[in-house]
Parts: sequence; structure tokens; C-alpha cells
Amino acid sequence: MIGPENLPESHRKLSILRNAEPGFTTYYTGENAEDLAHLRSCSVLLKPGFGHLAPEGVNVVETPRPQVAFYRLSKGFEEDYLPFHSLEQKAGAWIHPEAQIHPSASIGTGCVIGPCRIGPSVKIGPNCTIYAKSVISNGVEISAGSVIGASGMMWAWDGQHKVFLSQLGSVRIEAECNIGSNVTIVRGNANEETVIGKGSCIAHGSMIGHGCQIGPQNHLANSVALGGSVSSGAGCFFGSGSVVSPSTTLTNEVVLGAGAVLTSSATRSGIYLGLPAKWKSELAERMSGIPKWK
Amino acid sequence: MIGPENLPESHRKLSILRNAEPGFTTYYTGENAEDLAHLRSCSVLLKPGFGHLAPEGVNVVETPRPQVAFYRLSKGFEEDYLPFHSLEQKAGAWIHPEAQIHPSASIGTGCVIGPCRIGPSVKIGPNCTIYAKSVISNGVEISAGSVIGASGMMWAWDGQHKVFLSQLGSVRIEAECNIGSNVTIVRGNANEETVIGKGSCIAHGSMIGHGCQIGPQNHLANSVALGGSVSSGAGCFFGSGSVVSPSTTLTNEVVLGAGAVLTSSATRSGIYLGLPAKWKSELAERMSGIPKWK
Amino acid sequence: MIGPENLPESHRKLSILRNAEPGFTTYYTGENAEDLAHLRSCSVLLKPGFGHLAPEGVNVVETPRPQVAFYRLSKGFEEDYLPFHSLEQKAGAWIHPEAQIHPSASIGTGCVIGPCRIGPSVKIGPNCTIYAKSVISNGVEISAGSVIGASGMMWAWDGQHKVFLSQLGSVRIEAECNIGSNVTIVRGNANEETVIGKGSCIAHGSMIGHGCQIGPQNHLANSVALGGSVSSGAGCFFGSGSVVSPSTTLTNEVVLGAGAVLTSSATRSGIYLGLPAKWKSELAERMSGIPKWK
Repeated sequence: MIGPENLPESHRKLSILRNAEPGFTTYYTGENAEDLAHLRSCSVLLKPGFGHLAPEGVNVVETPRPQVAFYRLSKGFEEDYLPFHSLEQKAGAWIHPEAQIHPSASIGTGCVIGPCRIGPSVKIGPNCTIYAKSVISNGVEISAGSVIGASGMMWAWDGQHKVFLSQLGSVRIEAECNIGSNVTIVRGNANEETVIGKGSCIAHGSMIGHGCQIGPQNHLANSVALGGSVSSGAGCFFGSGSVVSPSTTLTNEVVLGAGAVLTSSATRSGIYLGLPAKWKSELAERMSGIPKWK
Repeated sequence: MIGPENLPESHRKLSILRNAEPGFTTYYTGENAEDLAHLRSCSVLLKPGFGHLAPEGVNVVETPRPQVAFYRLSKGFEEDYLPFHSLEQKAGAWIHPEAQIHPSASIGTGCVIGPCRIGPSVKIGPNCTIYAKSVISNGVEISAGSVIGASGMMWAWDGQHKVFLSQLGSVRIEAECNIGSNVTIVRGNANEETVIGKGSCIAHGSMIGHGCQIGPQNHLANSVALGGSVSSGAGCFFGSGSVVSPSTTLTNEVVLGAGAVLTSSATRSGIYLGLPAKWKSELAERMSGIPKWK
Repeated sequence: MIGPENLPESHRKLSILRNAEPGFTTYYTGENAEDLAHLRSCSVLLKPGFGHLAPEGVNVVETPRPQVAFYRLSKGFEEDYLPFHSLEQKAGAWIHPEAQIHPSASIGTGCVIGPCRIGPSVKIGPNCTIYAKSVISNGVEISAGSVIGASGMMWAWDGQHKVFLSQLGSVRIEAECNIGSNVTIVRGNANEETVIGKGSCIAHGSMIGHGCQIGPQNHLANSVALGGSVSSGAGCFFGSGSVVSPSTTLTNEVVLGAGAVLTSSATRSGIYLGLPAKWKSELAERMSGIPKWK
């Protein structure tokens, strides 16, 4: 088993492949050198015999199952994202002493706030939970009972046993977003942020998977379900109860109808309907309540 | 920009068009005089040159974009629906001193209760949030973690900027309703109630949009998503995970199958299935667990 | 009306038909003696003239509408699953003095914990609610804002009035399960457990109906909706936003695609897609992130 002690001391931080900057350790199970071309001064776990895929100067650790090895390795980097015993009660909320909360922000009664950053004029409703490392930017509003920065559930089989990937990332909600009640935004994976782009709205009951990259001025109606690593452009609109499969990409100004299920990437702007959702028409000017990104 | 000071002193309350009684101010972007025929002794924002649409005695304010002007105007009428600093802790819940709670009602531990009205024999589970102006009638039960009276998300573009409509309405839950856990019921818009009709059930995880008018003895199974302004007759049944598009109307005794997505109004009683949901069959007597309204 | 006093003193416990062991009282509205063949030393409510269906030694109570009579009877057996006035505040959570909590378990700030059982190494996130009789086994993790053991909503018409079946069952979450945030697991009906099998994952926003029997090593992605009494084998996978109708059975290794709606039982392993969901293909080895049960 590979532990932190098997890594160069200067590479003892974990990252998903895409974000692996110098100083991080990542893994790769494929066989295509291009996928690793961006790596510099870092470590990568690779299948035996594939060390040549890595660019020069990258430290290679060969191991039969790089994914399982990386997942096991992540356990050694786990942190407590809500250390209950450190919380202090303030005006009906429970707040970690290292939370950075702007004096103009308002924190709802019954909230539980980890060591996160909360910007000016933020308003957080009652009974919300904010896990560590979350960044809630200027002017964001969050309604009651929502959860920011919960852990995703990524795991792999190691024979008969499940190995979980410890979720080491964070959530960043950009300025002026509006988050409804009973919403969950799951945090990113290693060295990864889940991002909600500037000015986006996420209505009540919507669920955002780990590592999603939501563009600016998106609008998610109620009960939308995004799988992990969904990525959207500017001005997308997700109708009530719509669903997007993991790792799906939406270009700018994609509109998903109510209950539509997008299972493959939407590369053309316009309205998508059905299960699986298909492109149906251009976005007409007259549609109201829908972001028009200019 | 139009502010409250531009309105007659006796019209300084906002309303959606449908509910605009004497003394209110509303707006209209259309060109059909019939839509305004019900107005009396109130103010209406209209497009330039359309003042003649309003009945006599109605005060007309002409403005290039009545919707945007009304949304901006709403900001001046905003109220705090959960003034945290006024809440008082009582037996593990946080309660506003102006909340009217019947002595026979039971309020769960961890609840946050704004200045609302809670009737006899109401039972509210733990960790719920009840925003201001909500009316919870006789015998209603609400399970853990639900949110009543959250704000909806209505907005319009003003050039590059979003303008939000401040949500000034309320929620009324009629007698003997049964609301599950992790449910959100969004409050109405200006001078508008979201209504849950007498004896209706809303199971766990269902999300009810702003201004919905749910009839008596409806049954919503778990994870139902209703967009804003959905209206249903008596005895409707919504299967697990079903979805209804905004502003859709259902007549009496409409049954939506599990996962069905209703995108246009259902004018005939019976069973609707699919995406988009279509009428499939009459409602058979033998169906169990489904309200039979007589 | 039939009350507890009309039952033999030794049969004054209620049960669903399937689980009715000696000493319980149940009901039956059908006309097939085989459905009652398992009954021994118990009581059963039957339609008038159908007493002969019951095996010898079973106490028969004939009544015109056995279901309604049983539902009314259940009221007399009702218990308070969260007696607020008995809760005690401990380190920011509210805990019933009869809750059995292993010293190695961690209870989140803002939790409300009824008289349940919580095993070793369990971790419960902030603002969760655990109703009475729930059993949370060794190593289970539950994220913020989830509700375990809420009441389901079962009722029947008695003329113009609804009669609710008091939900007298419980929830059992087996070892090493991972439950996300904003999840609800509804408790079983009379003498019935809702069971989440060993090592299963239920991601954020998923809703589990009363009496579901989820097999081991299942994976429910976010926003999954299971109706009541759904039963699944080992290693099933439910995609984001998928829906399963009440009383549906899934064999081992059934994979439901994102947004798929399963309305009838899945008797063959493999991948099911669409509305209604249909079998599409075998489960390919190479699918990642999906449980492979061996």
C-alpha cells in the first residue's frame, strides 16, 4: 500500500488529474501520454509499465491499480470538515472560531458553520450547514436548511471491499448567487472546487454533485439534480425536476425543459426536452423568466 | 425609476395583477383591456401609450418596461421574514415574540419560527423553519427539516443586471394537512398566498413553487416538484418524482404517474403518464391509496 | 369500531400481514386463503363471511371494511416518536435520555435524537433528526440535515373522511452505510422495518419510502425517489433523479439510468433506461463507479 511516506516530501498534496499543478500527487489509469502532458514537478500513480507516459521531471509511482491506490492514499490526508467540539455558540448559531465572516453578513439561527469564508452582505437562512473551506462570496443569499460543502460519495471496489476517496476539495459560490432552501452543494474532490458562477440562482431542493462547474447567470428551478462534474456555460436554464448525468457539459444558453434528462453533452444553445433530452428549438426572444446572456 | 413616493399614498401596497383590489399597485405588460377590467381604485404600471387600457378611476403610471419597474419598486416594500435578532429561545426552539401559536400546538426542538400563525393541535417536527405570515391551520402536521414560506426566485433582466422581485406574499396551509420531512413550500408573490388545500398530504422531499394553489384532499407522494403558480382541483394525486411545469392547471381528480412530467394543463380527470404526461385512462374505482373525492 | 379492547389481550400488537407472527393482529381484504397460510396464534380482521380463510387457531374479527377498521385501530397504538419534552441538550445536540449511543459515535451539532440505537464509530452530521426505534449500525455516516425514521403517509377513505394508518415501524441502517445530506428515510409500517442493506450509499436529496428493503452494496445517486415498499437485491445502482414506483422489486445488480422511472419489477440484471424504464443491456465490466457484487 502506498502511503504519504512513499511520496516525495514536496508532493504530499493530492489532486485530480486536471488540476495537478507542481507539488501535487495524482493518478491515471489510461494509456494516453497527452492526458499527462500538463504535469510538471509532481507525482503520478500509473499502471506498471506505463511510466514512460509521464513528462520528464514528473515522479512516477507504478502500482497495479492506481485508482484504488490513490483512494487508499486519500485516507491519510483526510480532514475534519466540521470539528463539532471547536464550535462556539453565537446568537443561536454554532460557529467555528476560524470561520472568516464579514461583519455585514447575517447568519441564521440554528446554522452550523465550519472554518469557511463568508463575504460582505451574505445572508444565510436558519438551520443551514456550511462545511470547511467553503467560500461564500459577496451578496450571496442562502435560504433555510441548505447544506454547502457536504462530502460526495466516490468509491471503488478493492476485491470485496469498497474504498472511498476522501473528499478533500471545497465549494466556491461566486458573488450575488441566490440559493434556495433544502439545497445541497457537494464539495469538490482533491484540489478541486465545486463552483457556482456569479449571479446564478439555485432554487429549493436542487442537488449539485461534486466538482460541478456552473457558469455565470445560470438558473436552476426547484428539484434539479446534477450528477458529479457537470459543467455549464453562461446563462443556462434548468427546468423543475430536470436531471443531468455526471460529467456532462452544457454550452452557453442551454435550456432544459421541466423533467428533461440530459445524458450527453449539449454543444448547441437552445431548448432541450425529453428523456434523453434532445435539442428541440432555438431559444426564442419572447421566453420570459429565462436568463438572456448578452 | 419609480419609487413608492410616485404612487398615490393610498395605493402603496403591491399586488399581482389577478389579486389587485382597491388600494394596491400592480403592473401589466400586455395590450388587452379585458385583462385589466377587474381593477378599481388602484394603480397600474403600463407601457407608454397604453393608459387607455385601464378602467376609469384607475391611476395609470406609464413606464417603458413595467415589469422591470415593478420589480425595482418591490425592493422598497421588502420586509425581513425572519428577523433573527428578535427571536427568543423556548424549550429548544427559536420563536418570534409576535408569532401566534395556539397553546395546544407542539413546536419541535430546533425549529425557527417567524411571526406566523399556528393553529390548534398543530404538530411541527424538529429543525423546521417557518417564515413570517405563514398560516398553519388546525390539526396540520409537519415533519422534520421542512421549510414553510421560503422566498421564490423571480427576476428579470434590466440590461446586464438582474432585478429580483421581492417576494411579499405568504403561505396558507389549510386544516388537517400532513406535510412530510425535507419539504419546502415557497411563499406567494405580492398580495398572493401559496395555498395547500384542506386535508392534503405532501410527502417527504416534495417542493412547492411560489403561488401554487393546491386543492383539497390532494396527495403528493415523495419528491414531487411543482413549478410556480401550479393550480390543482380537488382530489389530485401526484406520484413519486412527478413534475409539473409552472402555471399549469389540473382539474379535479387528476392522477400523475410516478415520474410523469405534466407540461400543459390537464382539463380532464384521469390518469396521466409519461414525459410529457398524456391522458391515458379513466380513474378506476379499484385504485387504492388514491383520494376518491365525492 | 374495533378498539384494542376487542382483541385478545395476548394479540394487542399490530403488524402488516407479511410479518404477522404469533401475538400480533393484522388485516386482510382479499379472498385467497393462501395469503393467510402463514398465520399462527394471532388475530386477523376479515370481511364478513370470510372467516374460513384463516388457519385454525387464528382469532378472526369480521368487519365490513377491514382496512379502515385496522387504520382506526392503529390510532390506539400510536406512540410519540420524538417526545420533545424529554430531550436533553448535550454539546449542542438534543438527545433523548433513552437513546443508546455508543461512546465512539459522533453526534452533530443541532441534531435531535429520539430513543434510538446508534452503534460504534457512527458519524452523524449537523441538524439531523433521528426518530425513535431507528437502529444506526456500526460505522454508518450520515451527512447534514437528514431525517431518519419520519412517518409515512398511508390512509384510506372512510366515506368523506380520511383515516390515517399510524406508522408504528422503524428504520434499520446496516453497517458501513453512507447517507448523504438532506436525505429522508421513512420508517416502516406496523411491525415492519425499513432496511438499508450493509455498505449501501444513499446520496444527497434521495427519499426512501416506508418499508423499503434495500439490499447490500446498493448505490443511490442524488435525488433518487423510492416509493413505499420498494425492494432491491444486492449491488443495485440508481442514477441521479431516478424514480421507482411503490412495491416494485429489483433483482441483484440492476442499474437504473439517470432520470429513469421504474414502474414494474426488474427481474433481470442489467441496465434499465427511460420512462417507463426498460431493460437495455447487460452490465458491462468496464462501467466504473458502479458496484460490482461478486
